[in-house]
Amino acid sequence: MTKPRIAFLCGSLRKDSFHRRLGQAIFAATDRIECVPVELGDLPLYNQDLDGKQALEAWARFRDAVRPTDGVLFGSPEYNRSMTGALKNALDVGSRPYGRSVFAKKPAAVFSASSGMTGGFGSNHALRQSCVFLDMPVMQQPEAYWGLINDDKIGLDGTVHDETVAKLVKAFANAFADWVDLIGHGRAKIAPDPTQQAQAS
Amino acid sequence: MTKPRIAFLCGSLRKDSFHRRLGQAIFAATDRIECVPVELGDLPLYNQDLDGKQALEAWARFRDAVRPTDGVLFGSPEYNRSMTGALKNALDVGSRPYGRSVFAKKPAAVFSASSGMTGGFGSNHALRQSCVFLDMPVMQQPEAYWGLINDDKIGLDGTVHDETVAKLVKAFANAFADWVDLIGHGRAKIAPDPTQQAQAS
Amino acid sequence: MTKPRIAFLCGSLRKDSFHRRLGQAIFAATDRIECVPVELGDLPLYNQDLDGKQALEAWARFRDAVRPTDGVLFGSPEYNRSMTGALKNALDVGSRPYGRSVFAKKPAAVFSASSGMTGGFGSNHALRQSCVFLDMPVMQQPEAYWGLINDDKIGLDGTVHDETVAKLVKAFANAFADWVDLIGHGRAKIAPDPTQQAQAS
Amino acid sequence: MTKPRIAFLCGSLRKDSFHRRLGQAIFAATDRIECVPVELGDLPLYNQDLDGKQALEAWARFRDAVRPTDGVLFGSPEYNRSMTGALKNALDVGSRPYGRSVFAKKPAAVFSASSGMTGGFGSNHALRQSCVFLDMPVMQQPEAYWGLINDDKIGLDGTVHDETVAKLVKAFANAFADWVDLIGHGRAKIAPDPTQQAQAS
Repeated sequence: MTKPRIAFLCGSLRKDSFHRRLGQAIFAATDRIECVPVELGDLPLYNQDLDGKQALEAWARFRDAVRPTDGVLFGSPEYNRSMTGALKNALDVGSRPYGRSVFAKKPAAVFSASSGMTGGFGSNHALRQSCVFLDMPVMQQPEAYWGLINDDKIGLDGTVHDETVAKLVKAFANAFADWVDLIGHGRAKIAPDPTQQAQAS
Repeated sequence: MTKPRIAFLCGSLRKDSFHRRLGQAIFAATDRIECVPVELGDLPLYNQDLDGKQALEAWARFRDAVRPTDGVLFGSPEYNRSMTGALKNALDVGSRPYGRSVFAKKPAAVFSASSGMTGGFGSNHALRQSCVFLDMPVMQQPEAYWGLINDDKIGLDGTVHDETVAKLVKAFANAFADWVDLIGHGRAKIAPDPTQQAQAS
Repeated sequence: MTKPRIAFLCGSLRKDSFHRRLGQAIFAATDRIECVPVELGDLPLYNQDLDGKQALEAWARFRDAVRPTDGVLFGSPEYNRSMTGALKNALDVGSRPYGRSVFAKKPAAVFSASSGMTGGFGSNHALRQSCVFLDMPVMQQPEAYWGLINDDKIGLDGTVHDETVAKLVKAFANAFADWVDLIGHGRAKIAPDPTQQAQAS
Repeated sequence: MTKPRIAFLCGSLRKDSFHRRLGQAIFAATDRIECVPVELGDLPLYNQDLDGKQALEAWARFRDAVRPTDGVLFGSPEYNRSMTGALKNALDVGSRPYGRSVFAKKPAAVFSASSGMTGGFGSNHALRQSCVFLDMPVMQQPEAYWGLINDDKIGLDGTVHDETVAKLVKAFANAFADWVDLIGHGRAKIAPDPTQQAQAS
């Protein structure tokens, strides 16, 4: 039996992003899900005028990468008390054209982190609000606002050197694998969205 | 086989509240779930100092009413761009004492309505943010921000007289019944929260 | 010249609430504003049916206490990722009847705190969203999400024993006094809200 | 005496964007403020790795355009229940490098609109949350969630053909001019942020 394939979207474009490392750590902490890293740094800003019958190549590539996956893990740093523009733009690109979103009905989870104490709380919840419209069931618990993250606690290669962080990451990874399993089974039972059927015909 | 029993919490204390009527309409629109109306208007404001070994009688009654149900439907009017104080207080009461929340892991749905156009959007999402902490998986779609609701569209007894509203209510009711079914099956598979086990011993 | 009188609303009803103590510390840190403590623990849950020509006595008392003040300081603990039901209820009571809110155009500030790290971020911003509708200009900086607050850092009488907390409190108090001054002068220049004039006639 | 110069940032990149048109209508409705349109569609996604001693040219151009203005007007369409990725990216670009934000202490206002009923409520408030961190005092009232906007109500050149929309636009424009005046005078009185002083030396 194949493992669920999970698109990993990291909201920071920094090469040494803590969120990229923490994403690696999450996938390393469980063998029940498989990581599909999807880059979003090369996506032009979404503009409906350009999204006609032929999508921009970078948009098409992104959509094609997310569409076949079984769930999405968001690593969502906080810029100005919200998710990054880069991540929001990826949501906008993936959600269009209307009726052909690549996110719909995919189980999701969000973690956020910061070197300060609030752990990206504002970013985490801003993203959750978008997931409502995107029709992505988001894991509620454990919440992940990981504060005081630094290079001593997690290395450049995603190795966790701090026991508390390791426990949090492991609990999060296991709960997410459960959630993907739960929603994955449920998706099959739910009737297709009538809008989507209309669009498909 | 018994139907899932759903606690209905209405954030407005007005006798003729539109949210109370719309709640009735939702339960009338499907025979797959059963309504358990739970009053919250007589709950004293939550105060941890008073919540010792012996809870206030009204708090105990509320908790006992919600605990055995299989899900929660929230009718959430907007007061000052958020949920009502009455509803928020009910969440506070039901969530305590720590580790013994009556809401955890129960599937939920939120509808909001208004006589104006925005349909209680602010209230709806404010409540969703609390549901993250409460560990209640909330149905994402269809969202319900029902604007321009008035006495012509829904009678005092919850009878819907407007075709558009009737369709929205029916779609919402059916999707919620599916969601309760999906999460209800999943709950059984998820291991109990270690915190809760510790508390129970 | 008289000092601006500031209503202090504390969202926790606990006798030894950290927010009550921190409020005391803020007023102790500056002599440019004067504290008017306003109790909200005895306010019955807002119900429009009961708010006719004659308001409930407790509601009237609350409104009369806030109305003549020159600004509002909110101490907003986080319950379930939002403000407390008690505080939200006080906003609801003070904002009605329609057109006679006791909050409109009053300069405000919000601080939140917690024993954990996120410092009540969710509560702080949930309250800010209500302040938009209430037409209260809220101080933006410094933000106050004060984490890791405990009895060692602030005593039962509001005396701060921790240097970092003392600095944060002092900076917040001074910035708020500036804000009250700025908005207080501006209020005089702004034409009265036409709605309010209509109501007054 | 010179009029305050207001940067206008439009979150939609569509040529015929309703928000662009409504922005024009707002500036046409008052002669007390002057519009400085600032484009954000050509800004590369913010990446801290690229923002060293020499900023990307497009980022520098954007920062130089906003920096000397006296306030900011945001036209904020809703994509996926939040502001657009394009607008969020512009906030991220303008807010960095740390301590040299081009937004700090500038009076701001937000309007949002939609062809549906909710009028971009989610986008409007998501943006307001960022403005807290950006230290931009945002006008609270009148709120602008303009629903049911279409080509019949506002032409491609920003001419308003609908009486209700015209009234809303005029009231918003006048209130914003007052707000810019109020905060503009106040800014002079407020001591500079110590962080900014340190950075400037």
